[in-house]
Parts: sequence; C-alpha cells; structure tokens
Amino acid sequence: MSEAAKTLDGWYSLHEFRSMNWTAWKSLSSDERQMAISEFQGLLEKWGTAENSKTGSHALYTVVGQKADFMFMLLRPTLEEINELEMEFNKTMLAEFTIPTYSYVSVVELSNYLPAGEDPYQNPEILARLYPTLPKWKHICFYPMDKKRDGEDNWYMLPMEDRRSMMRSHGMIGRQYAGKVKQIITGSVGFDDYEWGVTLFSDDPLQFKKLVYEMRFDEVSARFGDFGSFFVGNILPSEKLPQFLHVN
Amino acid sequence: MSEAAKTLDGWYSLHEFRSMNWTAWKSLSSDERQMAISEFQGLLEKWGTAENSKTGSHALYTVVGQKADFMFMLLRPTLEEINELEMEFNKTMLAEFTIPTYSYVSVVELSNYLPAGEDPYQNPEILARLYPTLPKWKHICFYPMDKKRDGEDNWYMLPMEDRRSMMRSHGMIGRQYAGKVKQIITGSVGFDDYEWGVTLFSDDPLQFKKLVYEMRFDEVSARFGDFGSFFVGNILPSEKLPQFLHVN
Amino acid sequence: MSEAAKTLDGWYSLHEFRSMNWTAWKSLSSDERQMAISEFQGLLEKWGTAENSKTGSHALYTVVGQKADFMFMLLRPTLEEINELEMEFNKTMLAEFTIPTYSYVSVVELSNYLPAGEDPYQNPEILARLYPTLPKWKHICFYPMDKKRDGEDNWYMLPMEDRRSMMRSHGMIGRQYAGKVKQIITGSVGFDDYEWGVTLFSDDPLQFKKLVYEMRFDEVSARFGDFGSFFVGNILPSEKLPQFLHVN
Amino acid sequence: MSEAAKTLDGWYSLHEFRSMNWTAWKSLSSDERQMAISEFQGLLEKWGTAENSKTGSHALYTVVGQKADFMFMLLRPTLEEINELEMEFNKTMLAEFTIPTYSYVSVVELSNYLPAGEDPYQNPEILARLYPTLPKWKHICFYPMDKKRDGEDNWYMLPMEDRRSMMRSHGMIGRQYAGKVKQIITGSVGFDDYEWGVTLFSDDPLQFKKLVYEMRFDEVSARFGDFGSFFVGNILPSEKLPQFLHVN
Amino acid sequence: MSEAAKTLDGWYSLHEFRSMNWTAWKSLSSDERQMAISEFQGLLEKWGTAENSKTGSHALYTVVGQKADFMFMLLRPTLEEINELEMEFNKTMLAEFTIPTYSYVSVVELSNYLPAGEDPYQNPEILARLYPTLPKWKHICFYPMDKKRDGEDNWYMLPMEDRRSMMRSHGMIGRQYAGKVKQIITGSVGFDDYEWGVTLFSDDPLQFKKLVYEMRFDEVSARFGDFGSFFVGNILPSEKLPQFLHVN
Repeated sequence: MSEAAKTLDGWYSLHEFRSMNWTAWKSLSSDERQMAISEFQGLLEKWGTAENSKTGSHALYTVVGQKADFMFMLLRPTLEEINELEMEFNKTMLAEFTIPTYSYVSVVELSNYLPAGEDPYQNPEILARLYPTLPKWKHICFYPMDKKRDGEDNWYMLPMEDRRSMMRSHGMIGRQYAGKVKQIITGSVGFDDYEWGVTLFSDDPLQFKKLVYEMRFDEVSARFGDFGSFFVGNILPSEKLPQFLHVN
Repeated sequence: MSEAAKTLDGWYSLHEFRSMNWTAWKSLSSDERQMAISEFQGLLEKWGTAENSKTGSHALYTVVGQKADFMFMLLRPTLEEINELEMEFNKTMLAEFTIPTYSYVSVVELSNYLPAGEDPYQNPEILARLYPTLPKWKHICFYPMDKKRDGEDNWYMLPMEDRRSMMRSHGMIGRQYAGKVKQIITGSVGFDDYEWGVTLFSDDPLQFKKLVYEMRFDEVSARFGDFGSFFVGNILPSEKLPQFLHVN
Repeated sequence: MSEAAKTLDGWYSLHEFRSMNWTAWKSLSSDERQMAISEFQGLLEKWGTAENSKTGSHALYTVVGQKADFMFMLLRPTLEEINELEMEFNKTMLAEFTIPTYSYVSVVELSNYLPAGEDPYQNPEILARLYPTLPKWKHICFYPMDKKRDGEDNWYMLPMEDRRSMMRSHGMIGRQYAGKVKQIITGSVGFDDYEWGVTLFSDDPLQFKKLVYEMRFDEVSARFGDFGSFFVGNILPSEKLPQFLHVN
Repeated sequence: MSEAAKTLDGWYSLHEFRSMNWTAWKSLSSDERQMAISEFQGLLEKWGTAENSKTGSHALYTVVGQKADFMFMLLRPTLEEINELEMEFNKTMLAEFTIPTYSYVSVVELSNYLPAGEDPYQNPEILARLYPTLPKWKHICFYPMDKKRDGEDNWYMLPMEDRRSMMRSHGMIGRQYAGKVKQIITGSVGFDDYEWGVTLFSDDPLQFKKLVYEMRFDEVSARFGDFGSFFVGNILPSEKLPQFLHVN
Repeated sequence: MSEAAKTLDGWYSLHEFRSMNWTAWKSLSSDERQMAISEFQGLLEKWGTAENSKTGSHALYTVVGQKADFMFMLLRPTLEEINELEMEFNKTMLAEFTIPTYSYVSVVELSNYLPAGEDPYQNPEILARLYPTLPKWKHICFYPMDKKRDGEDNWYMLPMEDRRSMMRSHGMIGRQYAGKVKQIITGSVGFDDYEWGVTLFSDDPLQFKKLVYEMRFDEVSARFGDFGSFFVGNILPSEKLPQFLHVN
C-alpha cells in the first residue's frame, strides 16, 4: 500500500449553480420581483456579516452559457451550517424561479506533500488558507477533478516521493500566476463525485485558460488529471442584482 | 475459474433519496403541510416500533447539495417488506411534494474472506452485524461501488489468496476508525447497478473523507475500486421535520 | 474471422418498465381508478388466454426502488404482435398515469455452443425453452448485457473452441441453481442496445445474488461480461392490483 | 498519415424518432385527431410524389419499445430540403402530440474501398444506390456506429490495404443476406455524433439479428465497431395511421 | 514536463443552441409572434452594427435534426459583453418559446506551433484571424474536441517537436480546403467541457464531411482526437426569420 497524503482541512464548502426560469420570472409583477430580489439581498447581507466576522465567506457570480445563470460558493465551519444556508436559499422566493443545475460539496483542503516539522495548524499563513475570505475578483472558474486510476496511469499506486515531486512541479506553475490567479482547492473525497474542486479567481479570464492549459502539459495533469465540467463567470455584486434580474 | 467469495446475507435494504418540490410545497396551506408532516411522522413511528422489536431498522438524514434534500435507509427481513414500505411512502402526501433522485436496493452483506471453521450464523457478533440497528450518529455518507474488471486490473480474475490478503489490509484501515466511523456494507449484485453499497455513519463528517481517502491508496481501492456517486448529510430526527420543512 | 455462434430463436420479447405518477393517480376519483384497474385487468386476462393456448406468455412484477414501480414481460410469435400489445397498453387509462422508465426488445434465444447433430427445432425440450411459459415465481431479476470487445478482452476475436469451453463452464454454474432459479436468455443484437437480456425467476431473491456473484468469478463474466442496469421485484398477481394501486 | 478512403455521396438523410404523448392526444376530440392525421397523411402524399418523381424517398415505421412510437427516414438532394421537411413536420398538428426522442443527420454513402478505374458517378448501379428508393419491406432496423480509435484497435491508423481487405470480408457477409436484407449506409462524419448510420430493411426481423450478430465476429466489427442505440420496428403505411393513432 | 504550446487569443465566443417550443409558439396570436420576431430582429440589427464597426461578429443558422432548431455564435472583446448579450437574448420574448439545448464558451485561438520571431500581435493577417468577421456562407458545422490523454495516446506527454510536426501535417489538409471551408478554432480550456471548439463554414455541406473525414486519418486526429457532438445547419438571414417561424 502507498502512503496516503495527509491533508489539512478547513471550512466546509458548497458550490451552488442555478438557471433562471425566465418565463416564470417574467410572469411576476415588478413588485413581486422586487420582493424576491430584496429577500435574496437580505441573505447576502447576512452572509456578508459572517464574512466580516471571519466565521465564513461567500462568492456570487454569473455563469456564462447554458450550464447556469448564476452560482454562489459558501464557506462555513460545519456541514450543518452549509446545509442550513442551502435550505434557507431553497425556501426563498427567488429560488422558486430558479432551476438547480449543479452543486458541489467539499471542504477547503491543503495537501500536505510537504516536509514534516511544525504543527501546520499553528501557522497563521496556513490558517488563512484553510479559512479564507474569498476574493472579490472579476471572474470565477470552477471545475471538479479526479486523479486517474487507469492501468499504468494510477496516481494512487505511485510512491509518495513521486507524487510529492510531481505536486511540487505543479505548484511551481501555479506560483507563476501569483497575483493574477487566486486558487482555492477543496477536497470532496467521501462528499461528492470527484475528489477535488478547483475554484479560481482572476480579474482576467484569459489567465484561467493560460493556467489550466499550461498545467495540462505537466505530468500530474497530463497523465493523472481527470476533469469534470468547467464553469466560468463574472462577479455579480449584490447591488447589480436588480439589473441582472430586470425584465420588462 | 477463480473461487467465488462466500457471503453472509442479512436484512434487505433500500436507500431512498428525494428532493423537495419547494414551490409546490409552499402552495399548500400551513394546515395541509402540517398534515403531510404528521402523516410522515406516523410512518417514522411505525418504523421505530419495528426497530425497537428488532424486526428492522431505519435512518433519516438530510442530503447536502442538489442530489437530494433528504434520504432514508430501510432494513427489513424480506424484499416484499422493503417494497411495501417504499409503496407506503410513495402514497403519502409528503411524497407528492418530493422528486425521486436516486435509490439503491441491496442486502446487508458480510464478506467471508475469513478462515473456515464455525457456522457464522451461530455467532452473535455476526448476527448483530447482519441484522444491525443503524446508529443515530450525526452524519451519513453513502456511495455504491464496483470492483474493476479492466485489463490487468480485474478483481474477479485474481486468485482467492490475493483477494483475501488485500481485503485483510483494507479491513485494517477500517479498524483504525473504530468508534469514529460505523460502516455497513450492503451487497447489490443482481439487485442494483453497482456491486456494493457503502453506508458510513460518524459524528464528524471529516472522518468520512479521511477514511475514504486513506483507503484509496490501498491496492484494493487504488487498482480495483470503481465508485459511483457520493452522498453526504446530517441526521434529521423526526421532531426536527417541522423545522426542516417549514416555509413561509 | 472467428466462426459465429449459431443461435436458435423463439418468441419475441418485450420488457416494459413503468413508474406510477402517484400525484396524478390520486387526483382521480376512486371510481375512475377502479375503471383503469379493471381495464388493465382485462388486458391481463387476454394475455392469460394467450398463455393458456400456448400462443404467448407474460409476467407482471413490481420493481423495488426508483427505477420503476412495476414491469411486465411479454412473449409473442411476431414483432408485430409485441408492438400491438405495447400500443394497446399505451392507450389504456392506466398508462396515462405511468411514466415509461425503461424497455427492452429481444427474442428468446438458445445459443448453440453445442455439438452438431440432430435438428434442434425437432427437440421438444428445446421447443419448450424457445416458446416458454414464464414461471409464476415470487421474484424477478432482469439485466441486459454485452460481451466485451476491449483490447485483450475481446470475446468476438476468440476461437470458437475457447468460447464454447467457457460457455460450458458458465452453464455448469447455472445448473447448480436448477430448481432454485429459472433463467430465460433473450437475444437483442440488432434489436436493442445490449446483446442479451437475462431474466431470472426465483422464490428467493438471494438466489439471484448468489448466482450472478458466483458467475462473476467465471472467466466468461469476469473478463467478458459488460452489464447494464439490474432490476429486481416481486410478483404482482392481477388480483393484487387493486391493493398495489390503492390510494386514499 | 494513413490514406483516407474515398467516399461517394448521394442524397442527404434525416432519421426522425418520435414518441406519442398519448395523454394529450386523448384529450383531443376525435374530429381534431382526424384533422391531425389527415394533415400528416397530406405530408406523406407529398413525400410520395417526390418519391415517384425520383427526387427523394422516405420510409415510415413504428418503433418497438420506449425509444419511440414511430420513426421516419427522409432522403433529399440538399440539406436545405431536409431541413424544410423537418420544419414542415414540426409545425404540423400531429407533431404537437409527439416527443422528439432521437434524430440522425447523414448522407447516403458508398465507400470506395474498390479498385480504381471507371468514374463511379457514370455507373447506373452506383447511382441507384446513391439515390435509392427505400424499400417498403415489413421491418426496419437503424443504428449509428463509429470505427474505434482505441489503443491497438485504431481503424484510422491502419494501412489502406488492411482496411480494404477487412471491408471486403465484411461485404461478403452482407452479400449472403442479399434478397433478405437491404442495407443503406449513410455517412455522418461532420454531421452527427457517430460516423455512420446503418439502416436495414427486411421482411423478417430475425434476419437483422442474424446479420448483425454474424458480422460482429468479423474483425472489422469485433475489433473496430463501436455501436450506438439500436431501433427496430414495423412498417406503418399511411392508410394504417388512423388505426395506429386510434384511441377511445 | 512537456513544453506547453503558446496560444494567441482573440475575441470571446458563445455558441448558443435552441429548440423551438412549437406548441407554445403556436398558442400565441400572430401579432404576438410578430412582436417576438421583430424584437429578435432588433437584436440582430444591433449585432450587425457591432459587426460593421469591427467590435464583434455573429452568425445565425438553423440546425438540422433534434439537437436544436437554430443556433447563433457571438464574438465579443470581453466575457462580460458575451454574458450581457446572452442575458439580453434570454430576456426576449422569443427566448420564452425556446428550449436551451447546448452552449459553448470559448475564445478565438491561434495555436503557436510556429517558428519564433516577429510579434504575432503586430501581424495584420493574424489580427484578422483573432478578431474575425464570420463569413455568411450557406452552412455551418460545429463540434467541440479534446486531445486524448489515454495510455500511450497522450498528446500532452509528447515532445513539442512531435506535436508541432503533427499539427503542421494537420494544417496541410486544412489548406487543401482553402476557399471551400472557412475554419474558426476557439479554445475553451478552463471555460467549457472540451478543450477546443471547431466552427466550419462552407457553401457545400459535403465539404465538412470530406474535411473532417480526411483529417480523421491524420495521426493527430486518429490517435489524439476526442470529439463531442456535431451540429450542422443552414444559414438563417434575419429576413427569413418570419418564414422560419411561421406557423398557422
């Protein structure tokens, strides 16, 4: 048996993707629509309060193409809280006019392919990465992924040293995008259908393409990466919701 | 031909996953909703009576993310009883406001990769595992799985000794989680689309992730595990149903 | 080119799986529901007449889990008759309250991996297997399957002798279940998405699991079996339909 | 690079599969249903005129099982005409009571794995195959297929001579069914999700099974065939439409 | 690690595929339908203005078969503009009578498997390809694709020289179709589920088939091409919309 990588785990995470049922939404009066928007903005305000008090974080973005019209990502200390916020959204008036298209359940994860030593949970830099405040950058990219277990290309049969050295090389590519792309890895083994979720933020969506494409030539992706659907979108600040949801 | 593993088989099992149709549910009066909740609580009470008399067991949990809003797991001595309980639920008022999203039909199974000897059906410890009372722990994790039959990675072509030794190593990992994770294996060959269902209970959902991830590096999973969808959720006691289903 | 196996072909077959739309069904008056049930029982009576006159056979079972609520299997001498009975069911009142979930079109098949000699169509035992009266046993199991054509595991590239010897070993396992499990093989090459349908009948559903699991270790399944969905259920005699379909 | 096979291309083709929405269809008055049937019979008459003047051809068949209730196949000189006929059908009253379940866009194709020489477009026999009048035989079978590109089993990496010799052996099997099965190959590279559509006609559906099964042991199918869904049905002459669509 | 190919990236792109809900569309009065058509023609006019001022481009085509009734492709400088135009369409009256069936998000891409030297962004020919005005040719073909990473057939593990030489040979085939087929490659790594979208334009749809089929024998496609769905259709000029959408 290969030695399992140790992980550090932070806040629980939910990615929630929704399409609008525009026909039903249009059938409302503009007052009703305003009520639904205000109620959702109220939720966002509560989420903002949690973010300010460092007890969680969230992100709200549009999604381009038919996979969804918008998505939000929620971070909280427990799976119960994640579930409660999900239910609270499900019961809003706005949710009645949306169609669930995808979701992802995971937990913020740092992979410990690192030399042993200090207790990482005492390291403030690591704590900041396990309990992050999500950046308010202009664009988001999300995709889930597995490490392949396919004949000769079986990540989980590799010796620890090989995996560590490949992950280090992988990390080097990521580091070249520092300042341009912010990456949050969430682990979903036992929680959802892939092993990890990758959430990227950038002010320039082309950086997503450059980063993911460059990494694809790296052995860890080229031989072992198995990718799910890719979602890309634009930031949707609470105050832009009325415009986003405006219909005649 | 490889020697087939012998299995011990206990109670039949149904895992049933449902999403709420919140829009339709909201359209009811609060009295009607109360009626639907009470009717379902009546079912749960009957299930509880069966559990108390050791003629079956059940579990009711929420599910996080869009795969379902809640799930229940039912154990009974016969496939007919499982079917009757399923039909009884289908005919409730609550069921009208749910959308079936996944189900799994199987039977509690102990795999006999063990030295021969005593009659296992005389062993009280084994009987307790074949006819278990499901724990009321805070979290559930469910996933179905196959053993691969893919080129060189063909579980069913391996000699019995190799399979037994790999399963023993696998069991060792599981044992490290004793007290933290309770695992129920149900067999579904001939009953459903995967070969086994794995149901885990824990008071800490992170233990699901740690256990499944650690096992993934074990050869039996790394080379031979083929996994379906993963579902994770929180316990939903009968008395919390009104709150869970409360809408304005 | 490998020598193709010869097949003997009997009655055409349709497996039809349906879920109930319970919400719509409940919206009927109990008189209307009674009318729908009686009409369907009338169909069943006609099917019974055909069975008695040996011009066909049928089976009606519930299905456990969300894949369907019930299924029926029809055998008839021609594809036209199969189609007519399907259309007749589609036009019933009951069908309006069902949702089609799966179907399978095939023909009863005996595979001639046997020594040459006598004309099999003169053999009464073989005729009884080509034009069978389906047993009224308590449980049914259905699954479609292919033989793999995947790299080194390509059934259709094997010499006839290898296939024949593997099929013989396979048949030996089946024979151990004589009296416990009745098996009907239907061929669907050119008719449906898999190459064969396997329909098993038993008074003990555990025998399905034991048979299919034991066979999975046999080379013909281990290396060459590619399985579709598995369906399992309980017999639904015509006189139990009112109870099965009873709602308040 | 391997030498590409040359193809001869004839009429464009659309296979269109539809299920009936029987519940909605029943909700019409019998006069309304008659109007819908007559309108569709009018279309069929126009299609017949085109067939008589050799400017196209068509076929109308039922489909057995839940994949569809009926299907039609249309041949025309241009993609624009195919599209116009499709739109004309979409706008009929009957189409409102159908559910689209599958379609296939392709072009009649003869594969030129033949010795060079004469201009094939001057050969009347070849022209008759490129612009065929579809037979009015009792049964139809349709399936799309690819040639595999999978590791060692990569059709497109084989030398032309190997492909030619395998196709010749394949054609020999087909020739044994002359008079019993009529085969139309349509090419769909660049037009639809598989590379070819295969449409078979016969007065005996068992011949479909025998032909496809025998071919499956031929190397070109055994190693290189990758098959989509199979559809099978019975001829539906225009004058039988009222009976086919009759409901109480 | 293999050296990653450099890409040049131009306008963002959205391919949007829609089926008509003909039943709902017919339920409108002809005045209402005219309003919906005029509103959409207004959009097209705005898109045309952008095209004339070289700040974007678009294409509108029918789609043959059930995958969609029509599709449009939009090119714009930013992902935000793409998203705005998508939302603007979603909110039109016509959109209410359509069903989203597929979409694709990407960016016009030139792959830099070329000798180094001059700054490509200074080259007017390259700029014209990065910010193209889509041709108004009679037919369109669209398909997404990946480069395989499968055992020995792993594009991303090949040395740069091998990839470059294969791409050059690939380009040679394309060049033979110059004047007959216009090809736009859009990259979607990080944006959508495949790595590239290929959009072809031609006045003769048979050229799509010939080009794609010939390329399939080229090693880069034969061994490394992994293709998604193929869509094909006919040009739909704004002034033909009333006829395309005309119903009785």
